[in-house]
Amino acid sequence: MRVLLAGGAGYVGAHTAVALLDAGHEVVLLDDLSNTSSIAAERIAQITGKPAPLVVGDASDDSVVAGVFDEHGPIDAIVHLAAFKAVGESMQQPLEYYSNNLDTTFALVRVGVARGIRSFVFSSTGTVYADPADLPFTEDSTTSVDLSNPYSKSKRMNEVVLEDVARVHPDLNVTVLRYFNPVGAHESGLIGEDPSGIPNNLMPFVQRVAVGTLERIGIFGADYDTPDGTGLRDYIHVVDLALGHVAALEKAQPGFTVYNLGTGRPVSVLELIAAFERAVGRELPQTILGRRPGDVDATYCDPSKAARELDWVGTRTIDDATRDAWNWQSRNPQGFATA
Amino acid sequence: MRVLLAGGAGYVGAHTAVALLDAGHEVVLLDDLSNTSSIAAERIAQITGKPAPLVVGDASDDSVVAGVFDEHGPIDAIVHLAAFKAVGESMQQPLEYYSNNLDTTFALVRVGVARGIRSFVFSSTGTVYADPADLPFTEDSTTSVDLSNPYSKSKRMNEVVLEDVARVHPDLNVTVLRYFNPVGAHESGLIGEDPSGIPNNLMPFVQRVAVGTLERIGIFGADYDTPDGTGLRDYIHVVDLALGHVAALEKAQPGFTVYNLGTGRPVSVLELIAAFERAVGRELPQTILGRRPGDVDATYCDPSKAARELDWVGTRTIDDATRDAWNWQSRNPQGFATA
Repeated sequence: MRVLLAGGAGYVGAHTAVALLDAGHEVVLLDDLSNTSSIAAERIAQITGKPAPLVVGDASDDSVVAGVFDEHGPIDAIVHLAAFKAVGESMQQPLEYYSNNLDTTFALVRVGVARGIRSFVFSSTGTVYADPADLPFTEDSTTSVDLSNPYSKSKRMNEVVLEDVARVHPDLNVTVLRYFNPVGAHESGLIGEDPSGIPNNLMPFVQRVAVGTLERIGIFGADYDTPDGTGLRDYIHVVDLALGHVAALEKAQPGFTVYNLGTGRPVSVLELIAAFERAVGRELPQTILGRRPGDVDATYCDPSKAARELDWVGTRTIDDATRDAWNWQSRNPQGFATA
Repeated sequence: MRVLLAGGAGYVGAHTAVALLDAGHEVVLLDDLSNTSSIAAERIAQITGKPAPLVVGDASDDSVVAGVFDEHGPIDAIVHLAAFKAVGESMQQPLEYYSNNLDTTFALVRVGVARGIRSFVFSSTGTVYADPADLPFTEDSTTSVDLSNPYSKSKRMNEVVLEDVARVHPDLNVTVLRYFNPVGAHESGLIGEDPSGIPNNLMPFVQRVAVGTLERIGIFGADYDTPDGTGLRDYIHVVDLALGHVAALEKAQPGFTVYNLGTGRPVSVLELIAAFERAVGRELPQTILGRRPGDVDATYCDPSKAARELDWVGTRTIDDATRDAWNWQSRNPQGFATA
């Protein structure tokens, strides 16, 4: 299978590229490098020993997407990971988030369908679930666009669009993958999470405190209704997540299908930090801060549908994830800019 | 006030242009003429005796919108009516509906905010209300994107986008007008509803049967849970609707505000047809057909918020609407193509 990975130089994209190449597929990366580096593409080739051509361009531009098909086709499947994903930034720049995150889908579907792709896999998020009473979230749990931030709303809008696209293209396999919290890095330490600016998520923040580029971990709220008072999240190792994309592509069926990709095991913020401290071998400075708007007590999924239908299970542990994340960050203290 | 009317040559757009010009404002029409005619613009000028410049172009193209500001600015307000609106067609062409109806908003907001507009008025729909138990719908009734068709879903997505835009631009007046069922025509008979192809809505269908270009009215379901078995709708005279836009612009306040524009008086399909027969002076051939997917028993609004805050009430009756619609259609048997 030849796969166009839109956003393929990003965190999940690069790991998915490695997993696809390792599984014997071909990949073409399309990325505007607005939040990542071309070095990611070099590292993908270095890890796998296989070419990973990178087209630098905007996935919301039909002519750019068509150019990928012209130069690198025929293409069997598109995996769409080309999105803005910083929740806090989305609160400040909502129009940019809605337009980028929807226009990329419009262009990729428009061109992809015209060029005869068989499968379209969309990177969504577990934050589309709206009712905490549904925990653990199954794929049938209540979703909404009345969510706390434009990032999550834009993801839910994309799902709605894609469900209608699948209805009018009954031969197309449309798969939505609802990620929970991706963490960790490839075991090689050559690729990993490298957000620009101050990380929005806990794990890359902890990584930077460990490597010394940030001073102190801020814990946003220790008064949640959870065993230790900090939020519970479903952290999924990014390599497992990448393997979920491979399984979704290899087992794709016509129609519109949604899968949760998570472990189903809730882990608290304090537990994640403690695991990271074990990986690093020392305590990390940390401070309890106030809650962040939009954060919830707990979010974790029931991943049994993916186990049943895709034969996919996230087997890697939090200790695996923190070890691999530290391996990546300590070898690349400035991320890809270290190179 | 100088107002950019995107979709200004359409049915609601042309009547809104007349109402704005009559109220002493200036208008610039932007329309791609994909579902209307440049003759509408000539008729607006004919009715009002005032210029109504028409820019033919795509409101989803930033450079087109910027060109309107360059040539016709400064512009104080944008009224966004540039949407695909055929519910049935949206079922067949969902991607076209989502991309057109969202990309027009993205471009108009992006350019409009950059050029310093004060007000943005968005044409939405009463079909965003999701729970029949809420009848009559107030602006606080439950909304959803889990609606029966892409047209309605695209409108609700736009509302969500605009609410976030308003949050980050606190000086901007963002007003969402949720139309119920626009019917009727300007009393001059010079402008009116002129859909291309087979009309999707009842009133233009009845008009064409009356004028002889369609043979027989199809009534989609007479077994609804209503007094006469046919669906109840809230028909609002298009001239009243147009005056609602003027009121919304003249009384606009900073922030995000939603108004229902309807009469609050439910009228059945059979009642509307009977009113039209009174206007024409003869019976019209009609047949009961099966229900259409997505249709509901009843939809009508509580319009009291617009009465209270905008001093706006839809005063024209169903007999006014059918008389004016018949005046338009009988003078223009082929719509604008008659000219």
